[in-house]
Amino acid sequence: MNFQSQVDRVNKKLDQYLSTQGSLTEAMRYSVLAGGKRFRPILTYCVAELFNTNLAQLDSSACAVEFIHAYSLIHDDLPAMDDDDIRHNQPACHKQFNEAQAILAGDGLQALAFEVLVNDPLLESEIKIELLSTLTHAAFEMAEGQAIDLSIVEQSVNIKVLETMHRKKTGALLSCAVDLGAIVAQCTTKDRVILRAFSRAIGLAYQIQDDVLDVEAPAGVLGKNQYSDIDKNKPTYPSILGLEASKSAYIELYAKASEQLKLLSVDAGVLQLLINKLQTRSF
Amino acid sequence: MNFQSQVDRVNKKLDQYLSTQGSLTEAMRYSVLAGGKRFRPILTYCVAELFNTNLAQLDSSACAVEFIHAYSLIHDDLPAMDDDDIRHNQPACHKQFNEAQAILAGDGLQALAFEVLVNDPLLESEIKIELLSTLTHAAFEMAEGQAIDLSIVEQSVNIKVLETMHRKKTGALLSCAVDLGAIVAQCTTKDRVILRAFSRAIGLAYQIQDDVLDVEAPAGVLGKNQYSDIDKNKPTYPSILGLEASKSAYIELYAKASEQLKLLSVDAGVLQLLINKLQTRSF
Repeated sequence: MNFQSQVDRVNKKLDQYLSTQGSLTEAMRYSVLAGGKRFRPILTYCVAELFNTNLAQLDSSACAVEFIHAYSLIHDDLPAMDDDDIRHNQPACHKQFNEAQAILAGDGLQALAFEVLVNDPLLESEIKIELLSTLTHAAFEMAEGQAIDLSIVEQSVNIKVLETMHRKKTGALLSCAVDLGAIVAQCTTKDRVILRAFSRAIGLAYQIQDDVLDVEAPAGVLGKNQYSDIDKNKPTYPSILGLEASKSAYIELYAKASEQLKLLSVDAGVLQLLINKLQTRSF
Repeated sequence: MNFQSQVDRVNKKLDQYLSTQGSLTEAMRYSVLAGGKRFRPILTYCVAELFNTNLAQLDSSACAVEFIHAYSLIHDDLPAMDDDDIRHNQPACHKQFNEAQAILAGDGLQALAFEVLVNDPLLESEIKIELLSTLTHAAFEMAEGQAIDLSIVEQSVNIKVLETMHRKKTGALLSCAVDLGAIVAQCTTKDRVILRAFSRAIGLAYQIQDDVLDVEAPAGVLGKNQYSDIDKNKPTYPSILGLEASKSAYIELYAKASEQLKLLSVDAGVLQLLINKLQTRSF
């Protein structure tokens, strides 16, 4: 995605937060530091940058949202869940270690996500409570979304059910990443509302595009197996709407997100650039 | 254990917090409301009562600590972990539903634990941050402790390793339950330190006693299978120290806990009663 300064920044902080020794450190480091686009931290940093916020105040939020994301991938890959063996071009956590370690590494990462936010010395208590309220809610919705996802395998569902599932499973945490940036930046309520419309649009766009890439991109580029959803008989946007209509749907949503950005009280060039990058991504 | 008013109070609140509909509600309710001694919430309420604190201010803490405990039992019972089929005299969550649902119900409960604390309207932000700092840390330690527990199966370990494992796996959350009560009560630092020594002692005593009961109590009374640790070749206090020395060890620790209570600035009769009940429990 190439927002290199934000990626470098969050990678350094993730590494620091995971440096303390403990029985789960190895498995947590393996999964978190393996890579990933760091899309959520990029969103958090970029939103706060619009309002000239000191980025040091965003580090705990950026890492917290990435820890939640990382834990969800570890648990989603488990044999009892999506049963995926490859993640970020390396064996999934439960293949590299074992299932028990993977479950516990995920559990530990969820606790750690909230712990780093609670203990951030740069933020005031009122702000932390607002951040934690947003993140705990998103984390809960994400687990719910995954439960819906598993319940609709081999089911014939309509586009509304699929959308609800994605809004919870991935949309909630993406919106949360944007919210965290907006909360620390203490921007106006009006800007918060606009940013929420923006994040809802890119959240869904991103997911539809993922479904399209799952069909179109070769495995080596995705960092996981191609056709992983289709192989599992999961309903996807292409399977319901068809490939071309799915492409149109996500392009339209990205356009809607762009429109929102123009309504902000500040110049949002960096987020527009992010949309452009997202739209042309190949993985 | 028969601290019925505290048990009734927390059961009512747990039920309320779990009343909202959602795809994980059924599995979460099944496991949380199945029963259990509610030992952690009892501790939280009892500690706060010593200082005449309004118990309504303790409800979120009592539920949060029980949600963390419940999630840990659901995950611990999974086939990849301790592989236990019975919990609270009913099929374990993964047997009643399936493994994926059990993993997600646990994940959701962990998020919910922090969510109910963050959103408690009766507590000030500063207090909430202190509570959350304590609970996130304990939740992380608990996951670490479980990882150590799994790593020492069929290993010959010394008593020090076993103690470290238990201090993290169960002691951390029990101490946390006491801490939460003390934080909301805003008692003096001196009383906090005394209560911490008390909770460390009963935490370890409780675990050693559990190991003893695992050998001595019949399955129907335990609510889970007897000899569950021995069957798994897990090191236990009786397997290292012998049965009689293990009994002496926990009796001594309960006595130590009693001694601490006498040092408090307030009358701690209710906690002494709790120790008496714990010491004579048969499950």
